[in-house]
Amino acid sequence: MLDAACAIMAGGAGTRFWPLSRLARPKQLLALTGGGRSLLQLAWERARALFPPGRILVVTGERLVEAVAAQLPGLPRSQILAEPTPRSTAPCIGWAAARVRREFGDVPLAAVPSDQLIEGEAAYGAAFARATALAREGWIATFGIPPARPETGFGYVQAGAALGDDAFAVARFLEKPDRAKAERLLADGGVFWNSGMFVFSVGRMLDELRARLPETGRFADAVAAVDPAGEARLVAERFAGCEAISIDYGVMERAERVAVVAAAFSWSDVGSWDAVADRVPAGVPADGPLVFLKDAPRAYVRAEAAARKIVAVVGVDDVIVVDTEDALLVCRRGSSQDVRAVVDELKARGRKDLL
Amino acid sequence: MLDAACAIMAGGAGTRFWPLSRLARPKQLLALTGGGRSLLQLAWERARALFPPGRILVVTGERLVEAVAAQLPGLPRSQILAEPTPRSTAPCIGWAAARVRREFGDVPLAAVPSDQLIEGEAAYGAAFARATALAREGWIATFGIPPARPETGFGYVQAGAALGDDAFAVARFLEKPDRAKAERLLADGGVFWNSGMFVFSVGRMLDELRARLPETGRFADAVAAVDPAGEARLVAERFAGCEAISIDYGVMERAERVAVVAAAFSWSDVGSWDAVADRVPAGVPADGPLVFLKDAPRAYVRAEAAARKIVAVVGVDDVIVVDTEDALLVCRRGSSQDVRAVVDELKARGRKDLL
Repeated sequence: MLDAACAIMAGGAGTRFWPLSRLARPKQLLALTGGGRSLLQLAWERARALFPPGRILVVTGERLVEAVAAQLPGLPRSQILAEPTPRSTAPCIGWAAARVRREFGDVPLAAVPSDQLIEGEAAYGAAFARATALAREGWIATFGIPPARPETGFGYVQAGAALGDDAFAVARFLEKPDRAKAERLLADGGVFWNSGMFVFSVGRMLDELRARLPETGRFADAVAAVDPAGEARLVAERFAGCEAISIDYGVMERAERVAVVAAAFSWSDVGSWDAVADRVPAGVPADGPLVFLKDAPRAYVRAEAAARKIVAVVGVDDVIVVDTEDALLVCRRGSSQDVRAVVDELKARGRKDLL
Repeated sequence: MLDAACAIMAGGAGTRFWPLSRLARPKQLLALTGGGRSLLQLAWERARALFPPGRILVVTGERLVEAVAAQLPGLPRSQILAEPTPRSTAPCIGWAAARVRREFGDVPLAAVPSDQLIEGEAAYGAAFARATALAREGWIATFGIPPARPETGFGYVQAGAALGDDAFAVARFLEKPDRAKAERLLADGGVFWNSGMFVFSVGRMLDELRARLPETGRFADAVAAVDPAGEARLVAERFAGCEAISIDYGVMERAERVAVVAAAFSWSDVGSWDAVADRVPAGVPADGPLVFLKDAPRAYVRAEAAARKIVAVVGVDDVIVVDTEDALLVCRRGSSQDVRAVVDELKARGRKDLL
């Protein structure tokens, strides 16, 4: 158990898993990878293995509080931070850091997304132990994923001086590259994918926010000083005024003494139906008894089990089929990024019921 | 109005339009081609334009009687002949011929399938007038469709001596050919597709049945002689004992004096989802406001309107999507004959609810 706290960031409202994901049921609440547990539930289980239960916070949007609470019955309501309005990750982390500062003092805080898929518990635990130690030495620690391909969908971290085993000072952050740039980065080496997970001491983070994002800094200072009974009102009055900016742009890319811990665990942001389909061995449909594939060995079928509906795919390979009660998606494998266009079209048609 | 009768054969239980077609809702009851009317309703409308309304019979299976009556509210119940058990087309035609003989005397009877799509009313009427005249001269008249392609799914009729305008004596019937044979037939010429529609005088047909299918002949003679109040009991007791054989094999291919009338109307057996999809102009989905196609110009989508469910097809071309409340089919265009395999699999799994 680490002497540290953890904030699980669960406010996302992704559209890439439509029609299974909706505004009221975003990606992190979905059991995308089998096993029946949502990505949020998996994130919470990872946190419980490393952090004292009373020090695990979940930050989410007000409209998702009930769904989060339902998925995490072991989490006290007081540990759910409900953002009144989306403000990206910097205010989210500011609030969590201030709460931790007030309740537990200047301890390290891990801020982790709720919608990633991670495998390799021992390596995950070791990396967080390493990052927590770096945070105590004053570093902001990120986690770098050794790049498996010239991915253009992630930011990269360039490693500088070694900081002992499996960690480096960050030379610089690199925005999402184009394909040629990504290939060059991989060829040159010394880079990691930016996983979006961080560990820092809450004192240092509050200093950074004060210096770089004044509204967020003032909000966080107020939370750190408020009587707990007054926190909800403070948030209602002041959170919306914080800078709407990601922690990456707002702090990380401008801060000194940022480290990267090389991840030895398996990491995926499961960014699309393609990523989900790629995890399923060929010919093994997600919903066995309800799915019938003929001449469609690479078809991926996801049918809401509640519907007890049979899905037959005949002669169409490389297809993703996602069937829900009120919407059906049939998508070529490799085109699932275009699901966003469907959501945009539904918005344009005023079909809020399907968003 | 022709001085003749018409029997619409509506007993089929096809599986090729699964999941829209079911045992209780076979192809002829579906509105496959837009316009909201089923193939049976279209067949009935064609018959009403040519035959006295009291002389139009519909022969179907007992389990379909209510559905047929619901679709044809103008048809008196007494004109629905309900087969207690499927016995192919020879006993069906025998019963209809005997009923017509008893009620209207030795008039011509047209026996037509209920599940074909026909366009060109004037040419259709002219062909039936010609066939009716041939029937009065003692011929059994079939209708030959000028072959549009080397189709292997139909039987062919080889024309012999001309019988005046647009009609020939049949030299012989040819079973469904393989591809090479079909190509040879088209190259040689003088052949038609066998449309499965016939006109004959009921006296001649009863003679043929007596000579070739003794059980069916005896049954038909009994029906022709029975007091109308006793017909139902006679059918219940005797119909199942008739030879289960098609009129083609049982009579047509062995009979003398069979003619073929060359059809100038457009004819399709709409034998599969592919045939239905091919009738839709590219890029015009069947269910406009509920369907969203992106990079899928040749996708054909059929969603049960009652579901008010949106269907999005992204990047998958050449696909047929048929969505019903309890079953979903995603099929490559060109593979829809394989839908039969799905139905077989459902049988094997004991899913009678989906058949």
